[in-house]
Amino acid sequence: MSGGARSAGFARLFSPRAIAVVGASGDPHRIGGQPVKILQETGYRGAIYPVNPKHAEILGLPCYPDLASIPQPCDLALIAVNAAAVPWVIRDCGLAGIPFAIVFSAGFRETGAAGVQLENELKAAAHEAGVRFLGPNCIGTMNLHDRVYCGFGAGFANPHLKAGPVAFVSQSGGFAFSVVGLADFEGIGFNYVVSAGNEADITTLDLIADFLERDDVKVVVSYIEGIADGQRLRALGRRALELGKPILTWKVGNSDAGRAAAESHTASMTAGYALYRAAFEEGGFIEIEDVHDLVDAARAFSSRRLPRGPNVAVLTTSGGSGVLIADACDKHGLKLPRLAQETIQAIEPLAPKYSSFANPVDLTAQVTGDDERFNRICERLITDPNIDQVIIRYGAVQGARGEAWANGLGAIAHGSDKPLLVAWSRVPDRTEPAIKILERQRIPWLLTPTRTANAAGALYQFARRRQALATRVSRSARRVIEPRSLDLPPDSRTLSEHESKRVLAAYGIPVTREVLLAPEAVVALTQPPLPFPLVVKIDSPDIPHKTEAGAVRLNVRDLAELKRTSSEVISAAQRHKPGARINGILVSEMAEGVEVIAGVVNDRFFGPAVMFGLGGIFAELLQDVSYRFAPLDLDTARDMIRAARTHPLLTGYRGRPALAVEALAESLARVSLLAVDHADRIAEIDVNPLFVSAAGVLAADALIVLRN
Amino acid sequence: MSGGARSAGFARLFSPRAIAVVGASGDPHRIGGQPVKILQETGYRGAIYPVNPKHAEILGLPCYPDLASIPQPCDLALIAVNAAAVPWVIRDCGLAGIPFAIVFSAGFRETGAAGVQLENELKAAAHEAGVRFLGPNCIGTMNLHDRVYCGFGAGFANPHLKAGPVAFVSQSGGFAFSVVGLADFEGIGFNYVVSAGNEADITTLDLIADFLERDDVKVVVSYIEGIADGQRLRALGRRALELGKPILTWKVGNSDAGRAAAESHTASMTAGYALYRAAFEEGGFIEIEDVHDLVDAARAFSSRRLPRGPNVAVLTTSGGSGVLIADACDKHGLKLPRLAQETIQAIEPLAPKYSSFANPVDLTAQVTGDDERFNRICERLITDPNIDQVIIRYGAVQGARGEAWANGLGAIAHGSDKPLLVAWSRVPDRTEPAIKILERQRIPWLLTPTRTANAAGALYQFARRRQALATRVSRSARRVIEPRSLDLPPDSRTLSEHESKRVLAAYGIPVTREVLLAPEAVVALTQPPLPFPLVVKIDSPDIPHKTEAGAVRLNVRDLAELKRTSSEVISAAQRHKPGARINGILVSEMAEGVEVIAGVVNDRFFGPAVMFGLGGIFAELLQDVSYRFAPLDLDTARDMIRAARTHPLLTGYRGRPALAVEALAESLARVSLLAVDHADRIAEIDVNPLFVSAAGVLAADALIVLRN
Repeated sequence: MSGGARSAGFARLFSPRAIAVVGASGDPHRIGGQPVKILQETGYRGAIYPVNPKHAEILGLPCYPDLASIPQPCDLALIAVNAAAVPWVIRDCGLAGIPFAIVFSAGFRETGAAGVQLENELKAAAHEAGVRFLGPNCIGTMNLHDRVYCGFGAGFANPHLKAGPVAFVSQSGGFAFSVVGLADFEGIGFNYVVSAGNEADITTLDLIADFLERDDVKVVVSYIEGIADGQRLRALGRRALELGKPILTWKVGNSDAGRAAAESHTASMTAGYALYRAAFEEGGFIEIEDVHDLVDAARAFSSRRLPRGPNVAVLTTSGGSGVLIADACDKHGLKLPRLAQETIQAIEPLAPKYSSFANPVDLTAQVTGDDERFNRICERLITDPNIDQVIIRYGAVQGARGEAWANGLGAIAHGSDKPLLVAWSRVPDRTEPAIKILERQRIPWLLTPTRTANAAGALYQFARRRQALATRVSRSARRVIEPRSLDLPPDSRTLSEHESKRVLAAYGIPVTREVLLAPEAVVALTQPPLPFPLVVKIDSPDIPHKTEAGAVRLNVRDLAELKRTSSEVISAAQRHKPGARINGILVSEMAEGVEVIAGVVNDRFFGPAVMFGLGGIFAELLQDVSYRFAPLDLDTARDMIRAARTHPLLTGYRGRPALAVEALAESLARVSLLAVDHADRIAEIDVNPLFVSAAGVLAADALIVLRN
Repeated sequence: MSGGARSAGFARLFSPRAIAVVGASGDPHRIGGQPVKILQETGYRGAIYPVNPKHAEILGLPCYPDLASIPQPCDLALIAVNAAAVPWVIRDCGLAGIPFAIVFSAGFRETGAAGVQLENELKAAAHEAGVRFLGPNCIGTMNLHDRVYCGFGAGFANPHLKAGPVAFVSQSGGFAFSVVGLADFEGIGFNYVVSAGNEADITTLDLIADFLERDDVKVVVSYIEGIADGQRLRALGRRALELGKPILTWKVGNSDAGRAAAESHTASMTAGYALYRAAFEEGGFIEIEDVHDLVDAARAFSSRRLPRGPNVAVLTTSGGSGVLIADACDKHGLKLPRLAQETIQAIEPLAPKYSSFANPVDLTAQVTGDDERFNRICERLITDPNIDQVIIRYGAVQGARGEAWANGLGAIAHGSDKPLLVAWSRVPDRTEPAIKILERQRIPWLLTPTRTANAAGALYQFARRRQALATRVSRSARRVIEPRSLDLPPDSRTLSEHESKRVLAAYGIPVTREVLLAPEAVVALTQPPLPFPLVVKIDSPDIPHKTEAGAVRLNVRDLAELKRTSSEVISAAQRHKPGARINGILVSEMAEGVEVIAGVVNDRFFGPAVMFGLGGIFAELLQDVSYRFAPLDLDTARDMIRAARTHPLLTGYRGRPALAVEALAESLARVSLLAVDHADRIAEIDVNPLFVSAAGVLAADALIVLRN
């Protein structure tokens, strides 16, 4: 049935030739009372088999006592029975040769321990029976291409929803179907909509993977509270870039309040938002935050055109909208360059008096009424060699005049492969003719200047990542140690600073020269152990935060000061944490330069990721840090350094010297190798501060947390 | 005519009893050809008098050769003649006793020097003639309450636009009227819409002031590229808070690209966005960024209810929308507290199985269909003593059932004075009955969960500022010097560090102890001038940035080092800027603590404003700085310290000691007194770094720029 679909994996799930409805009822107030009626009223063309031993007939259809009695093979069972009975029904599906099920029933993992147990039973039953299923605790699916509505609730009440080359996978069912309604209201249709429910078998990521490969899907939308397989999410991001199909991602549960609500809802444990963002930024994900973002990005990407670079030409008939578009473009890293001289020469004779030919080009309200002239100027902009995409804003041309204008614009778009986006004011009824033509010509139209610039920004973001994926030279850091040749202590504990630095040094990360001395050895010193000035610190596995403990002295200048401060830091450590184990006094050279933080978090969903930021505690409080997944190649390490808003401090800000950014990139990449080589043991790494100078980098403090 | 309007100032401008159209024409392609037709077609009920010596009749109306010939007194002249003739026409208005004009004609200030000249002539003519006017170069006005459309262009083509208690003043005419169309499409009507044009006479701020006082305006919207009178903007912000009417402000031209476009558009010179934001944050301004923000805030404020605090209860039927609302609430500083125990006890028996009673309350899809039960639970939430406002999301209940539900909700809202906002999915035609009732009951309904939370955030933001204005104790810093008793050098120049610090010290701001020594005096030293360790710097009015010049040495420990570094900094200064005047070597005590920046910019639109941030260059690069206008009272100084995202560093972050925040607030307030006392002379102040320790504050470097 599904003509254009190439992916065969879930074909029978979404385009079933016949459907059994288990737990069907004639009572519309029960969940089981809804699917048969909905299938009938919304245009399903296959056979429907209600199953319920209590009834002989439901809504004019013969009702069967069990799945075995159905006379025809079904592709799909919709299950709306009591939770406890679901494993039995799934087994029956297997016996009846039904390959797919959608489990509406609630009362599983989302309800606590007994529910988890029941969900495990269900999974085992499905595995044995060879049945794949959606849910439990899901609301259903829609295939609007073939008009198959399998679900219950208000979301399935509208039989007139539009189809369109968009697929939507949602971890919130109720909300997803209301989004579909709102998007439909703004003119966006979906070929597929899925409520993923508890994902006991088929997951959100399975569904995204399936939809990406379908010919009748050009844009995938996902509403995500949390996913369990970060590596797979990343792989899907790469695949999306390869295919040129964005995954519009609505990631929720990012605030503390939101996370608490998400956990009570799906009981998903979610990785930190920072890691999701790292995955989104390297792949074909476009983050959206509301329905209008979805509508706009879906429309923009449906044109199947991507810009070659950041340069936008803006053409308006009012200065105000030009300013707005310029402001919004700026937020997305888009540039409004000067137009080429030949472009300006070509448009000047066409444009009204008082027009402005800077970019944005403002033709003033005087051009209104001369649609042909407006389009000729637009044509010159799109052929400008400095320009990668064009945004136009034009008054809402109505009726037949609108049709002529839109057709003219279509011809211009066809003469170019650059994106052309239209900010367009909709007037009920009167602008529909032009909109129809714009849509047929695949020219994205958007409701406001800001939304149009946002859509252009999304296209650029996707195009930039796609280019980066295609052109990236994956040069790794130079290895100074063979993988896994390092012996880490076998227990689960925090290494002291000195131990941590020895691990880093083994991976080629420069650390301060230092000696660890017993307190009595310090007292006995007659010569400095290293040239002054020096740093004196406590070395203790029980005091990870030495500064807070008052157990650090900087800039120690002579032997007397060294002895005095050594005794001070011991006292401070004992005061801070009585009974702390003390390895000794760590005496090290002073490091100078700009302070940065490098860290590793080994996330249970994504694996090890490297964090980088400038300015120590400021980076932390201001969240000016970036994350990338380990291992990092050098290009990625350079990217993450540039991602810090304070990175000008490394490259010669206000007359400061340019620092050793390459050495920093190399060290970040080496930290990432350490994290990957020992991903089973290393839970966290913290190199803070790492000093960057013109000569190189130097780790002045470090902390490694091991686990078993 | 304008029944509810209390403000009389511009009454005749917006509700004219008769209108003259000067430069009227029968040709709809000319600007002068449009206003008569538009007035006729859109329901104007007064007399229309076309004026044009070339015609005897226009669109069925007798046409007059000049204003003097019109038989009846007019309240308003619409002027669409050649720019050069406008001053003459304005004089004629005066002679004919016409108090107001709207000048559509372009060709004034926006076109360059000759246009500026002509605009000045126009202003002089109007002043002499006693005529107030809008424009030139404006598109017109609408009074939708009385159906008076005075303008030209596509924006005036729709005679069916809704009226509503919102007024819109825009510095972009063309764009404003398209916004009106889009807002109308989403159900928001305006009583007044004005294109301000070049503002040669009546300004955007005049119009906002007028609208705020009108009884038929509850919400003012302003689209601003730049305004010239910052003090008046601030006064309007206070008035808006007093009246409980927000000024929804769409500030554009904030990016470099946007500013360039704004300047080519209106030639407005604009103050920095940071100062606008400072004005917005102290007053009744709500920043908006697109049409949907306007629609949502207009709807939320039209309820005329404000929350008493940040606490929100959220009630949904799908966990997904609860998560979304929680995330969005978090961004606005709203809290989702636990419900009171008695509330939970009351709703538990009403709620379906598997409901969640944490906040957000999720009743699950099971409640769908039982509108009465949903409303009873809503009623319990709104009466919860912990809760300041309630957000509900409910499925799109349709037709008569929707009416019953909305009426029930209306009764609940009337039993409380707390805001109740509804996230509501619109389904074409079927949801209109419920929407009508919600609007009649003044219950704001919004299209998505996120937009609903944003609207709740806007209400809270306004309410919080209103409370702050009402309760603020305006305690000033303690004066240690009489206003203007300080003698500043008479010339326009940059003071050296030592001079700058003496000025600060005179205002009671603690500065480092220091001595300024001639280079030869340093060479001759036999005793340290101050106790070691010391700082050695060049003191030169020609080297404002000493660190960049390499002319600073910290932590100097003995006399030999003092002499060596003094000679080094002199050489460095001479290398950096050959011929720089050198006042001497500044030797000062070392300061310790957390580095902050305090600064003053004396803006030509807003006057002096104080800037504050932590962390020196990090604050600058990360824009983690706040601005408040001088003079600062102590409460405001404390607010601006708290506004820094890094302010936990001052209050005991991670075991650090709590620092002298009160002394810091006092110093900021004193800097602001200095800036105000000498606002005519001081262009800039930069205290950077100012060190904050547990004991107090200490300015380690400072720079004051004087002007004449």
